[in-house]
Amino acid sequence: MRIPVLEIFGPTIQGEGAVIGKKTVFIRTAGCDYQCSWCDSAFTWDGTGKDDIRLMTAVEIIDELKEIGLENFQHVTISGGNPALLKQLGELVDSLKNLQMKIGLETQGTVWQAWMLRIDDLTISPKPPSSGMNTDFEKLDGLVESLTKRIGEGHVSLKVVIFDEGDLAYAKRVHQKYPTVPFYLQVGNDDLTVDDDEQLSIKLLKKLDWLVSKVIIDPEFNQVRVLPQLHALLWGNKKGV
Amino acid sequence: MRIPVLEIFGPTIQGEGAVIGKKTVFIRTAGCDYQCSWCDSAFTWDGTGKDDIRLMTAVEIIDELKEIGLENFQHVTISGGNPALLKQLGELVDSLKNLQMKIGLETQGTVWQAWMLRIDDLTISPKPPSSGMNTDFEKLDGLVESLTKRIGEGHVSLKVVIFDEGDLAYAKRVHQKYPTVPFYLQVGNDDLTVDDDEQLSIKLLKKLDWLVSKVIIDPEFNQVRVLPQLHALLWGNKKGV
Ligand code: SF4
Ligand code: SF4
Repeated sequence: MRIPVLEIFGPTIQGEGAVIGKKTVFIRTAGCDYQCSWCDSAFTWDGTGKDDIRLMTAVEIIDELKEIGLENFQHVTISGGNPALLKQLGELVDSLKNLQMKIGLETQGTVWQAWMLRIDDLTISPKPPSSGMNTDFEKLDGLVESLTKRIGEGHVSLKVVIFDEGDLAYAKRVHQKYPTVPFYLQVGNDDLTVDDDEQLSIKLLKKLDWLVSKVIIDPEFNQVRVLPQLHALLWGNKKGV
Repeated sequence: MRIPVLEIFGPTIQGEGAVIGKKTVFIRTAGCDYQCSWCDSAFTWDGTGKDDIRLMTAVEIIDELKEIGLENFQHVTISGGNPALLKQLGELVDSLKNLQMKIGLETQGTVWQAWMLRIDDLTISPKPPSSGMNTDFEKLDGLVESLTKRIGEGHVSLKVVIFDEGDLAYAKRVHQKYPTVPFYLQVGNDDLTVDDDEQLSIKLLKKLDWLVSKVIIDPEFNQVRVLPQLHALLWGNKKGV
């Protein structure tokens, strides 16, 4: 089965989460079962990117990575949308493994796929109230439990994007449910149209400052890590960098 | 033996390196065997902080941490100066361990101490040519070898601060010598006097952009991670935050 691909770009650096700063190539798949109010990749599911979707085989994707030059990177990040919707990613995961690539993947945690066990850096990013979505905690429990039991230490992390106090309360609940899973709080970017990069950077840094100020006074957050999105700080809302 | 302490502050977040974003309390010790041209904590060794040095026992330091509130953090970072000059840190390290604290420590790698084996996040940060210092690679070899062999995976990392092309060439050499040790490239801040935080942030982000652009085209840097200093982005050159 073919994979709906919206973008392949890089090498660039991973801007967020557990492997922040790592050189990687992004493969962005189309389609999502959520519609978060502040989604920064809504073009993967709202129809606006429809004409850019290519239905590719794993072999075609690997060919495109070869054109980038396999010697130029050792890490590939599969993002979306929600790539966990795609059962057929298993073949791509295997092909990447055969090339000695490390693989990162992010999903909001609604769907389980067997190939997840072969991901090196798997980020589960359940969506807080400001997204407008409701978390099915039963499904999330199942996913987190299977993964942490079977994939091994250091390969799974949780990440919650924070826009407001309600999101922080939600994040605390998630962190308390899975206290041993590495937990990242990420500054939300709700200004997806501004094209003055410097102005956006300053705004995002102010939000980071706010988030840090909340975390450092709260003993429940002693173990979390607070991070910005480096790509947003560096390149604003540009796509494909 | 007492420990020369210059600052105890936090909780705040660790702004750099392997545990970037983690809540921590800093203990800054006085004294360094280097005099880096761009040292951002020169007050620890150039005499300007002399009157602020307190000679403290491990017990007194722990008492001060208790005043901050031990329930408010689970990570302590010992920085300098070069804390590795202080054999007497062993007692403090043990006391922190007894309190279930995780311990981070940064040193440029000139001196070995037995207590290093009990550090959870040890960053060795050899100094590139722009610092004006010369690396004794024989000593560094010995330190990296002992540590990586004995302290176990995931507890040691290397970090090089980058100001220019010469520093990048140096970093590459260090990375090639110890290819299995997690390696971080950090944007250098050579503007230690500017007090316009926003202006400094924009400047540092431009440097990060430059560093990223160098790393992503160089296959020798496939495994490194590129990071800014979050505290400099957030709070500029202020001390004690
Ligand atoms: S889950 Fe992710 S891709 Fe899907 S709508 Fe939400 S933010 Fe966008
Ligand atoms: S080794 Fe560190 S503390 Fe010592 S002079 Fe250099 S930058 Fe400053």
